[in-house]
Amino acid sequence: MEFTAQQIADFLKGEIVGNAAVCVSGFAKIEEATPGTLTFLSNKKYIHYLYTTEASIILVNQSFETTEPVKATLIKVPDAYAALASLLTLVAQYLNPKKSGIEQPVYISQSAKIPEKDIYIGAFAYIGENVQIGDNAQLYPQVYIGDNVQIGDNCILYAGVKIYSGTKIGNNCIIHAGAVIGSDGFGFAPDGEKYNKIPQIGIVEIKDRVEIGANVTIDRATMGKTSIHEGVKLDNLIHVAHNVEIGENTVMAAQVGIAGSSKVGRHCMLGGQVGISGHIQIGDNVQVGAQAGVPNSLKPNTVLLGTPAMDAKGFAKSSAVFKNLPDLQRDVTRMKQEIEQLKKSK
Amino acid sequence: MEFTAQQIADFLKGEIVGNAAVCVSGFAKIEEATPGTLTFLSNKKYIHYLYTTEASIILVNQSFETTEPVKATLIKVPDAYAALASLLTLVAQYLNPKKSGIEQPVYISQSAKIPEKDIYIGAFAYIGENVQIGDNAQLYPQVYIGDNVQIGDNCILYAGVKIYSGTKIGNNCIIHAGAVIGSDGFGFAPDGEKYNKIPQIGIVEIKDRVEIGANVTIDRATMGKTSIHEGVKLDNLIHVAHNVEIGENTVMAAQVGIAGSSKVGRHCMLGGQVGISGHIQIGDNVQVGAQAGVPNSLKPNTVLLGTPAMDAKGFAKSSAVFKNLPDLQRDVTRMKQEIEQLKKSK
Amino acid sequence: MEFTAQQIADFLKGEIVGNAAVCVSGFAKIEEATPGTLTFLSNKKYIHYLYTTEASIILVNQSFETTEPVKATLIKVPDAYAALASLLTLVAQYLNPKKSGIEQPVYISQSAKIPEKDIYIGAFAYIGENVQIGDNAQLYPQVYIGDNVQIGDNCILYAGVKIYSGTKIGNNCIIHAGAVIGSDGFGFAPDGEKYNKIPQIGIVEIKDRVEIGANVTIDRATMGKTSIHEGVKLDNLIHVAHNVEIGENTVMAAQVGIAGSSKVGRHCMLGGQVGISGHIQIGDNVQVGAQAGVPNSLKPNTVLLGTPAMDAKGFAKSSAVFKNLPDLQRDVTRMKQEIEQLKKSK
Repeated sequence: MEFTAQQIADFLKGEIVGNAAVCVSGFAKIEEATPGTLTFLSNKKYIHYLYTTEASIILVNQSFETTEPVKATLIKVPDAYAALASLLTLVAQYLNPKKSGIEQPVYISQSAKIPEKDIYIGAFAYIGENVQIGDNAQLYPQVYIGDNVQIGDNCILYAGVKIYSGTKIGNNCIIHAGAVIGSDGFGFAPDGEKYNKIPQIGIVEIKDRVEIGANVTIDRATMGKTSIHEGVKLDNLIHVAHNVEIGENTVMAAQVGIAGSSKVGRHCMLGGQVGISGHIQIGDNVQVGAQAGVPNSLKPNTVLLGTPAMDAKGFAKSSAVFKNLPDLQRDVTRMKQEIEQLKKSK
Repeated sequence: MEFTAQQIADFLKGEIVGNAAVCVSGFAKIEEATPGTLTFLSNKKYIHYLYTTEASIILVNQSFETTEPVKATLIKVPDAYAALASLLTLVAQYLNPKKSGIEQPVYISQSAKIPEKDIYIGAFAYIGENVQIGDNAQLYPQVYIGDNVQIGDNCILYAGVKIYSGTKIGNNCIIHAGAVIGSDGFGFAPDGEKYNKIPQIGIVEIKDRVEIGANVTIDRATMGKTSIHEGVKLDNLIHVAHNVEIGENTVMAAQVGIAGSSKVGRHCMLGGQVGISGHIQIGDNVQVGAQAGVPNSLKPNTVLLGTPAMDAKGFAKSSAVFKNLPDLQRDVTRMKQEIEQLKKSK
Repeated sequence: MEFTAQQIADFLKGEIVGNAAVCVSGFAKIEEATPGTLTFLSNKKYIHYLYTTEASIILVNQSFETTEPVKATLIKVPDAYAALASLLTLVAQYLNPKKSGIEQPVYISQSAKIPEKDIYIGAFAYIGENVQIGDNAQLYPQVYIGDNVQIGDNCILYAGVKIYSGTKIGNNCIIHAGAVIGSDGFGFAPDGEKYNKIPQIGIVEIKDRVEIGANVTIDRATMGKTSIHEGVKLDNLIHVAHNVEIGENTVMAAQVGIAGSSKVGRHCMLGGQVGISGHIQIGDNVQVGAQAGVPNSLKPNTVLLGTPAMDAKGFAKSSAVFKNLPDLQRDVTRMKQEIEQLKKSK
């Protein structure tokens, strides 16, 4: 499919600067763009690429003024990044048109409440007793929904997602393939050297607009609930233990692990492979860098790195010295001798 | 459902102190309890909550004597924690009644030996050639059991568990959704810059009373077996490589990785995200703190932290100095100058 | 099954030294071998075991000359390790004979192109619209293949592998159970405190001879493709983010995470639990030790360890000093006092 700059500007309600007839058939990053692609300029760091890129069309912010001639056709829009996102959404819908209908075979319990239209249930999906599913759900093949699960409107569960019994999921959630929601929390009572299982009778509750990555695991609570609040975004292979609470609009990169009963605040960012100990509280707007290990509660608005996690700038400085520790030790050893020398020769 | 203190005391064979008619309908932690909930006191650190909690019923140890008046009804039992666990078990059975029967469609090879009664096989489960499954098994939907697998009595395999051919599983095991048991070990022989696959002809053997978390992966041995001994408990997203051996009653928190051919002793505790190198031996009763990396064999009864792992107390002390390394370096630099000064002025 | 040394030597075209009639029925490592097993000697470090092992047959390199009498029968071959691999392959084929045919029920879209013979499709497998699958494919039960996926010849996809729409996979690839290929990249645009999803319209492209471990996740590109080049081997539970590129014959141990848009060179080795930051370039032949965290681009042929990653030998030396940091600090504190003393007494 090809589109002209004119067609795209019309769709975006943007203003054309340059050749309105030029055609594009794909997207590219501004630094890698080839002729026939559309790109965008949003981050000021990339302005210099505007004058060298091979892209045929560039989306720019309305306020942007060029300082040199530009080869490409510009389309000026209120927000270049948002305009790009709306084009991408259009293409995504074209590439993966919304599925509908119920494929066969599926297993749907008689007591399950499924909307009669606007639903997709892929083959080999399993829907247990008393399940309630909202309008417009897309359940891909081989999804498993245990008994008494509630799922809101407009949710997408990709292939092979497993939802244990009793889980509650809000509206507009996306859960990627292989994710497991509601498995037993890791709770055992020591009995000599043995461990006896503590039954995990709580649930997982996921609020609206949450996205959960592939092969993530979120355990049910021992009692009460494990809570994932509105707007949380979890990347792949993350582990969330029993009774954890994750605040609104917090995002976590892949392979993060949160131990039992910890509370993570609102609007936090955790880097990849971060570990959070159990029974602690992470304040709002906290940022923890990749691979950091957090053993203690953290105040809001802090930025941390390292294991045990410390102030990120301090970690960078200490790490620089760490590299030179052998030299530092050598210096100290020599200075000791020199001091002894000085003491003797006094 | 509501229960009176009298009903609960009768069930637990406990002694009531206070109002026997008070009702509860749920559980809570002593520090978070609200009226209408039952809680327990086991850990002495929490004694002060006894006098402030809003809980309606508190399970306490028989030997416990109050020093101030308590609002709640007490039920005295030989072991408050064990009593709680037995109540939780009752509730768990009520919330998730045991499934039975064989749902349709399933795929069961003719040569498979399945008990005729007391079994649950969920829809879309697959059972390969010559599989043997013990009494009272619960195989949830979409479970995959490869050829020649043996599974003991009273095992629960949750939705989508994948067991490769030849795996042996003991009695009373629980395996959570998405876990993969018996995938090929990561073995390749270099051939110039290329790698040729070394066939992995061993198996995985799991003994009795093992619990395995969601999306865990346990690889089959190159030759011989990967061994998980009795009573081992593995949290979610753990990786166990080929030819590893894990001793009895060892527990591992989420996202631990054990590299090939390493042996972990009995009754060890590994914290979350710990990494164990290949071809090493971890003694019995070893405790390794979260995120530690263990490059070498460890003696029994040691407690470690850090990467490379070291004595846990030593790590804490060294980490405290690490935070101040920039100051330390500044001090050393200044002292060097001062020593030079002293040497000159001698 | 038992085989004589003569039968094995005939198969390998090797030369017998010792009793040609001795029988074996299994394999073992040279240091653990028992009578009735076959072992091999390839690594010179293990030569001393040759004279003590209980193995009945030992494969050795043609050039190898014994210096003492050996109890076992030797079979001399051009390359002992390669000879072992060919025996293992034979046994593997015997233990897991190649499956064929299409089990029922499966879901195969009418528009999918499946070879008419030499294919195995296990029960409950799902094959979407316009899928193309090459000759000799083995798709185990419960595999999910989304729309427009292309898979080359001789590929094995184990139980429950999930391939999202649009993914391209080359020839001779092996993908283990539970792996998810083509899930959405983790891309969101901040909108106040909220995050809006950026549609991920790219694909994943996997070239020939790639092996992917159990429960690995590889995300599709935002635009363009996430590329896994020829001969790459990924262990279990690895995360590969959107737009990542992994060069030919690079191998990664379990639980590695590669953040978005990073490029890893050819013939690299990443240890277990390594983390690679986003938007960086790792040169060819780089080796990164277990648990290291790589925040910046790396030159080819480097060997690194630690977080942040540094020269591996330097890391070892600095770590040795780290253990002694409390002593070092004490020394510095004392030396400060001594210098003050010296200054006063001047």
